[in-house]
Order: sequence, then structure tokens, then C-alpha cells
Amino acid sequence: MAGSDKGMRTRRDFLYRAAAVGGSALLLNTMNAWGMGIASRVSAPPQLSGSGKGKKVLILGAGLAGMTAAYELGKLGYEVQVIEARSFAGGRCQTARKGFQLQELGGQMQECRFDEGHYINHGPWRIPMHHQSTLHYTRLFKVPLEVMVNENDNAIIYLEQGGPLAKQRLRGAQVKSDLRGHVAELLAKSVKNDQLDAQLNAGDKALLLDYLANEGHLDAGDLRYKGRSGRGYKTNPGAGMLPGPGEASDPLGFRDLLASKVGKVYSAVQDFPMQNTMFQPVGGMDQIARAFEKQVGRTIRYGAEVQTIRQDANKVTVTVKDAASGKLSSLNADYCLCTIPLSVLRMIDTDFSPRFKDAVKAVAYMPVGKIGLQMKRRFWEEDDQIYGGHIVTDLKGINVISVPSSNWQKQKGVLLGYYNYMLDAIETSALSPPARAEFALSAGQQIFPAYRSSFESSFSVAWHRVQYNLGGWAEWTDESRKAAYPILNEGEGRILLAGEHLSYLTGWQAGAIESSWQQIERIHARAQA
Amino acid sequence: MAGSDKGMRTRRDFLYRAAAVGGSALLLNTMNAWGMGIASRVSAPPQLSGSGKGKKVLILGAGLAGMTAAYELGKLGYEVQVIEARSFAGGRCQTARKGFQLQELGGQMQECRFDEGHYINHGPWRIPMHHQSTLHYTRLFKVPLEVMVNENDNAIIYLEQGGPLAKQRLRGAQVKSDLRGHVAELLAKSVKNDQLDAQLNAGDKALLLDYLANEGHLDAGDLRYKGRSGRGYKTNPGAGMLPGPGEASDPLGFRDLLASKVGKVYSAVQDFPMQNTMFQPVGGMDQIARAFEKQVGRTIRYGAEVQTIRQDANKVTVTVKDAASGKLSSLNADYCLCTIPLSVLRMIDTDFSPRFKDAVKAVAYMPVGKIGLQMKRRFWEEDDQIYGGHIVTDLKGINVISVPSSNWQKQKGVLLGYYNYMLDAIETSALSPPARAEFALSAGQQIFPAYRSSFESSFSVAWHRVQYNLGGWAEWTDESRKAAYPILNEGEGRILLAGEHLSYLTGWQAGAIESSWQQIERIHARAQA
Repeated sequence: MAGSDKGMRTRRDFLYRAAAVGGSALLLNTMNAWGMGIASRVSAPPQLSGSGKGKKVLILGAGLAGMTAAYELGKLGYEVQVIEARSFAGGRCQTARKGFQLQELGGQMQECRFDEGHYINHGPWRIPMHHQSTLHYTRLFKVPLEVMVNENDNAIIYLEQGGPLAKQRLRGAQVKSDLRGHVAELLAKSVKNDQLDAQLNAGDKALLLDYLANEGHLDAGDLRYKGRSGRGYKTNPGAGMLPGPGEASDPLGFRDLLASKVGKVYSAVQDFPMQNTMFQPVGGMDQIARAFEKQVGRTIRYGAEVQTIRQDANKVTVTVKDAASGKLSSLNADYCLCTIPLSVLRMIDTDFSPRFKDAVKAVAYMPVGKIGLQMKRRFWEEDDQIYGGHIVTDLKGINVISVPSSNWQKQKGVLLGYYNYMLDAIETSALSPPARAEFALSAGQQIFPAYRSSFESSFSVAWHRVQYNLGGWAEWTDESRKAAYPILNEGEGRILLAGEHLSYLTGWQAGAIESSWQQIERIHARAQA
Repeated sequence: MAGSDKGMRTRRDFLYRAAAVGGSALLLNTMNAWGMGIASRVSAPPQLSGSGKGKKVLILGAGLAGMTAAYELGKLGYEVQVIEARSFAGGRCQTARKGFQLQELGGQMQECRFDEGHYINHGPWRIPMHHQSTLHYTRLFKVPLEVMVNENDNAIIYLEQGGPLAKQRLRGAQVKSDLRGHVAELLAKSVKNDQLDAQLNAGDKALLLDYLANEGHLDAGDLRYKGRSGRGYKTNPGAGMLPGPGEASDPLGFRDLLASKVGKVYSAVQDFPMQNTMFQPVGGMDQIARAFEKQVGRTIRYGAEVQTIRQDANKVTVTVKDAASGKLSSLNADYCLCTIPLSVLRMIDTDFSPRFKDAVKAVAYMPVGKIGLQMKRRFWEEDDQIYGGHIVTDLKGINVISVPSSNWQKQKGVLLGYYNYMLDAIETSALSPPARAEFALSAGQQIFPAYRSSFESSFSVAWHRVQYNLGGWAEWTDESRKAAYPILNEGEGRILLAGEHLSYLTGWQAGAIESSWQQIERIHARAQA
């Protein structure tokens, strides 16, 4: 048992004792808790000195990794040129609003028809508070943020395969109140009945009963869980003589809850990247791309597709094709930072070594599908009081229906109708956009009576069918992390790679930014040498 | 055990079965879950028909109860006159920003000196999603809302009296992860060891173990809780070759956690009014008051203090004193809705019956103190990654330090330095404003190293010392609810009362609004008869 800190005067004392009592783990934990930097080590760009003047860096891709590099290297005086295949910057950092167009490989052209002020973030859609790298730039570039509601206990949980609770509009608050209440009751009674005397002494028992009574909202007398305000009332408290003081609504049965396996939709706490407080930029995630573009846009050449990548002892040579005219041109630089997703890079003509090329090919990219549905009435708010957050469901191919954290109480709203992966995403992507919408509506209609009748228009994406991405994000395995990851991080010669794929934050904007920070530090070291 | 719903085709079928299996409780619960209205009964103003033309209603007080009445009765054609003692409307719905002045009884004049764009909601500061009455008007009057972060597991818990964990900057996520993990481990092992066979059959055991493994993040092999991403990492995952895959930081010890009693700061779910998603108006809570004022401001006479209230068979007569000139005037009306807090009303000269006067005197009002502290740097975000939410502490007289859910990532911010009640509030209120700030800074400095050095200016309120309130809100007891509450709701003759005090939502804006809805319905019924 860790010692108490009675008599402790200073932090330093505490740290010494922590190390003595709890070893380095406790020491580091304490240091971390006090903000002494281990966990926040990579929350700022590398502090680099010296000048890049006279040196040129070619950056392939104007996503966040590329633009981060352009910005930071530009500050150091490097001549930077960014090559971007699309007509706009941001990479996967996109937002679909009125007029936004997308044509997937082998698919129809979609043009988003959402009303002014409404949008869907069909790429990244939330920023964890722990991602200080992303937040570094939103702060620096003054991108206004708002809360993205990622946890809402009033949201519905709908399980088609939910045993005794199948096809019911359960609320997270009810499920958590009741499962935790019943479990606390079971344990408390067992403790009280001396069934756990093998593990607990008298002192333990008293403290544990105290904890369980609070966690489970147990009756002081009989230790039973009988409901609580947090699960909702039979009649909500109001004013005047009606309604009365508000008795809690009746709990769901313990066996029903266990048999339904609904407990799997939550856990003691959210996982690290999913915890309150999460953010989104006001007006769409692409505001981050716009902010970067404002800083480095003049260095970006748009509509230029990379055709070949070559290098020799002195320089890197990249040929690009102008997407509009088809015209080819050749660009040289001292160094190259290639941020092209590996899924695309492996199809480009390069002179990397066979070993490097194998590494590029070693990583799978995740098929991902998303659909935004504009609804003419915010029925989830008006009828169900669900403000932001996720409706979790096992309806095939849906995973989650997420309601927007913007335009509160307005007339209309765009919700996320599905967010699917792997086989589900491949199947859905085979559907035409209207058929994808129909698929989403059929599912949503089972949960919300007003779903189909409120629908106005949709915009969907299947990232594995997007030409310059061919997948949502990189999916490493233990094996490929061991074999290919170090090779790719090392780069080759005058060419380094960067992007979410070269991080442990795959699929997150922070992965792209932090990879870029690392790689520009290495480029700078090489350039200065 | 409730039956499964295999073979169920329609909602109607389900309801019949629910009633048969689970009785009326399950039936009502299901109806409620499907939005069939019991719990949402009072989320809209009363639907009243007929006209109030030719009838005059005097409304005492331009807080939310008064202005709600003025708006709704005005729509029905009543001639409405609102008498307000202050120079502005809103009652307790106030926001302190630059230039806002407050002089407490027996106190110094305070003038808020916060920077432009910064403020403190020193009265109501959050709107529960369940308070559909408040949200009715924010929607109707198009008051823009933003999320008020009311639960943030990255916020610090600081217990001076925390046993083995005293004076440590604990994080909610760690405490929840660890306590729930350890408890799940204890229970899972007990179940596995057949120690709970008295309560659980084999099927129960398997399902329960399944649940506990997920809730507690238990090791599949040995059922031990060894930490999880949700409690934080030893080193955060990042990019490139460092840091590595991110091992969870080490859990706090089970006995330490229990002995510290830190578990009392959370529970299975938040209580009903405190659940995600909570709101605040953009730019300050008083935006609600401003929106009402826009609708009914022309009916409000400001700076007019009620002196006497009299009635006879035909009319109500109220004399008011003009606060500026001291001039007295007399006003008549057919009916009167008095929304003056009982704490103040009992000191006004009225001709209520002794029974009614006793009822007015029967209710205590809560002493409440709040202080806003402007900090020149948002150290809670920059150093600790705490974005909105509450730092819970047992430091005497503080209760909570709450950080703002606005101005994300800006340079400065105003935080709530304490929110105290009863004796603590009385003691703090005896201090001068600078001394109150010093008290708050001394406490906060124990948690945040940058607290004192970041401080710029403060604005504090002790509601029990505010002339027209004499308390934060009404505090009913079981006894006074039985004895006095019905009498006050009934009103007397041509005079009805309304306000948060005549609700089961005391201290909430919804209480004032819903009380007002009820009482205007009764006034209208009397007027039409």
C-alpha cells in the first residue's frame, strides 16, 4: 500500500517518497500528474535552430502532414514547394457542405446539397483533448473550436440482437444506472454476508460498502438498488402541485440486462482518445485546413499529380502531371518529404530500394464509409432530447448514428447515418449514393419514427474508393509494425515519409502532425550537417 | 425475467406484452422510452384559448417567471404591466461582464473589470437538457446555445482530507478507471471462485463475468485489473519511433482509493439535472433575459420597488416607489402575478391573510456565494489539458473550481473560484470583495501552481446579501412542502404567486418558467369565468 503523505511539505519530498515507495512508476505517474512533461512530450513542434536558407524541400501532399512541414520549414527559411493532386488543400481534412463535390473511383459524381450552415465532417470529425499537437495549431492559427459531444447518456442504444432488451430504445443513463446499481447491490450484499471474507478484512468491508452504496445508489437499509434520478423519473419534477417529487422510474431487470449484453457498449471510463472534452472547429473540420492554407497556400501547387520520384546523391527529382492539362513537369529539390498515403504511394513509380518498396506495400488501409443525412427537423432533439452524441446500434453496417454538435435547436440538422468499416464499408460502397441513403434510412427508421419522413438529402463517402486515399487510414499489425514501420520512418536517402501512417495515432490528425514534426527535425538535421 | 420479444411485429404488441409481463411500470417505462409523453408533459406553455382583452394583469418582478407571464398573457391579449425594482430585467438571470455593478447590502460597490468577451454567470450557469421549458424559450427566441461542459474526467479531484491520496492532483478518469477496475476484479474473482453461488447460477456467472471483464478492463487470463488507456499512459502514443505503443500508467492501489473515499465524488451516472448534454447561452446566461426583454420590455417599468399590495373584490392595488426619485404611485389591475422571492415578499406590506403570510414566511432561502476570477493565462488548459468542467475539492468553503466552457484556447479566461452554500457562504460573504478573492486564491494555489500569479481581477456575489433576492433560491423541507406549499400555490383572491420557489425545480430557471405557466393558466381560467 502506498504510504500516506502526512507531513509532506514540498513536491520534492513527495517525489522522493513516491520513488521510494512506489518505484519509478509512481514517480513518473506523479511527475506526469503534475505536468512534468513525459506524457506531453510531443505537444509542440521541435525547437529547431539554424537556417534552411538556400535549401529546397519538396513536399508531396498538402494534407496536415504536408502543410505542417511547409509551415515549420518555411519558418526556418527553407524554400518549400508543396505538390497537391487535389484542387484544394487538407487531404482527408474535408467537410462536405453545399457545393462540395466528390467522385469516387467507379462512382457517380456527388454534389452536396445541404442547406447553408449545415455540413458533415466526412473525414476526421473530432479532436481529443489529449491531442495537443492538433490543438497547438488550432490555438496558434486561432481556429475557433466548439465542443463535440462524444458521450451523451441520453442517447439511445438500440440492439437488434439484444436478447430480452432487443429492439428497445434504451438510454445510456438507464443502462449504466441499472447495471452498475444491480452489480453494486450484488457485491454489497455478498460483502455484508461475509461471502468475501477471504479477500476483505473488516476495514476493507466497511469502506467498500461505503463506496458501493454511493456508486450503486443503494438503499441504506437493505442495500438494494431501486432506481435513481439518473435513470429518469416516472414523472419529471415540475412546478406547482403537479407533478410530485419525482419517483425514479423502475430499473430494468438484472438478468435481462446481462442477457442482452448491453453492458458492452460502455466501460468504466472512455478510452483515452474518446474522453471529454472533445472538440470540433466551428463551421467544419476543414477550417483547420483553411487555416493552414492561409499560412502556406502560396507554396502549394494544386491539381498536380505525382508521376515519378527519383533521387541521386545530390537531389530529388519528382515529375508531376497537371491534372487539367495533362502537361508533365519536373521538379528538383535538396530533400523531399513525401506525405502521400502508402496505399497510393505504392502505385507511384519510384526508385526506392526493393526493401523500402516492400515496406510501403506492407500496410493495409481501412475501408471506411460515412454518410451525412440532412433532416428537415431535428427530431432527435425535439422528440427525444438527444443533444449531440452517438446512438449506438448493432444494426448491420451502421455501427453508430451520430447527431450534430452544432446548430443547436435550429430547424434542420445533418446527422451521421452510418460509420462503417471493413466488409460493411466495402458492401455499402458498392451501392450508389441514393442506395446508400436508402440503406441508412431503413436502419434509422427502426429507431426513430420520424427518420425517413424527415430526410432531405445525403452525402456519402467510401474512403477506400477515393482516388488519392484508397482507404481511411493505415492499419498496422504487430508484424508490420516490427518489420516495415522502422524502415519507413528511416526514409531513404534524401526522401523521408510522413503522415498518420507513421504514427501510433493512425486515423487521427495528430498522427499526421506529430509524424511531420519528427521528420522535419530529421530533414533539418541532415540539411544542417 | 421479462420475456424476449421474438416474433414481435408492432409496438402495440410490445406494449400489450410489456403490460402483461412487467405490469404498469414496464408499460409506462416503455411508453416513456418511446416518447409517449408522460415525462415530457410540461415542456410547453399551456395551450390557452380565449382572449384576455379588456383585462389587466400586474406582474411583480421581471425575472423569468414574470417575463414568461408577460409574454404568454400578452399573446392572449391581456394588458400586462411588469413592475421591476432593478434597472434591468432578468432577476437572478444575470451575467457579470465589464461594467456590471453590484452592491450587496452592507457591502462595497463592485464593478466587474473583466476583459471584453469574458464574463461569469454568477446566477444560473447551466441548463439541463431535461429542462425543456427553458429550452422552449431559447429555441423560440433563437438564443444561441453552446455546450456547458459539466463532466470532464480529465479535471482534477483534490482532497485535502483524502487519506492516502490526500493533496494529490487526481484525475477523474484515473479514479473511475481504478476503482471500477479493482471492484470488477474483486467481484469477478469471487464469482469465478464460486463464492457467490448462493446468488448466481451458471448462466448468470458467465454473463456477469463477461460484463465485468468489459467494465473493469480485466485481463482475460487472470481477471486482474492492470490499468487501461482511459486512465492515461506512461507515455502518450505519438509518432515515429518514439514513443512506443503506450502502456497504461499504473493504477492507484485499491485500499488507498477506498481509504481516501474519493469514490464519493462520482456515481454510476450523473444525477438527472446534471447529465450530458448541458448548455449555456453563447455570451452569457443573461442572453435569455435579454431575449425575453426584447419581447416584453415595453411592458416593464424599471426601478420601481413594490411598497404595498392590497386587494378587494374587484381589483388589486399595488403602490410602488420610484427608486430614483422616491416618488410613490399607485397601480390597479384585475389580477396580479407576484413573482417576488418569498424572502423579500415577507417584508412587504400586504393584506394577505395571516395563514397566507405564515406560509410566505415558512421557507428559508439558501445563502450562496460565487466568485469569478479572471486569469491572464488559461493555465488549466495549457498546463493540465482541462477543457471545461469542475475541479472538485474539499478545501473549506470552495466546493468546486469550475473552468469556463467558452473562449477555448484564448489567452485569458474567467473561472469560478468557489461556489459555496450555507455557513461557508455566510462566512465568505462577511469578507470584502478583495478578501474573498484572496480566500479563493489561497485555495486554488494549492491545486494549481500558476493560480495566484495568473490572477487579474475578481467579481463575487453573495446572493443572501443581494437586496432584491436575500438568498440564492428557496429551500423547502418535507414539512413546509406539506404545510405551506399548497397554500402559496393557491394564491389568494386576485393574487397568485409564481417563481422557482413554487416548483420542484428550485434554483433552476425551469422552475420559474414552469411555475409561471401553471399560474397564468389559472389566472386565465379565473379571468374567463
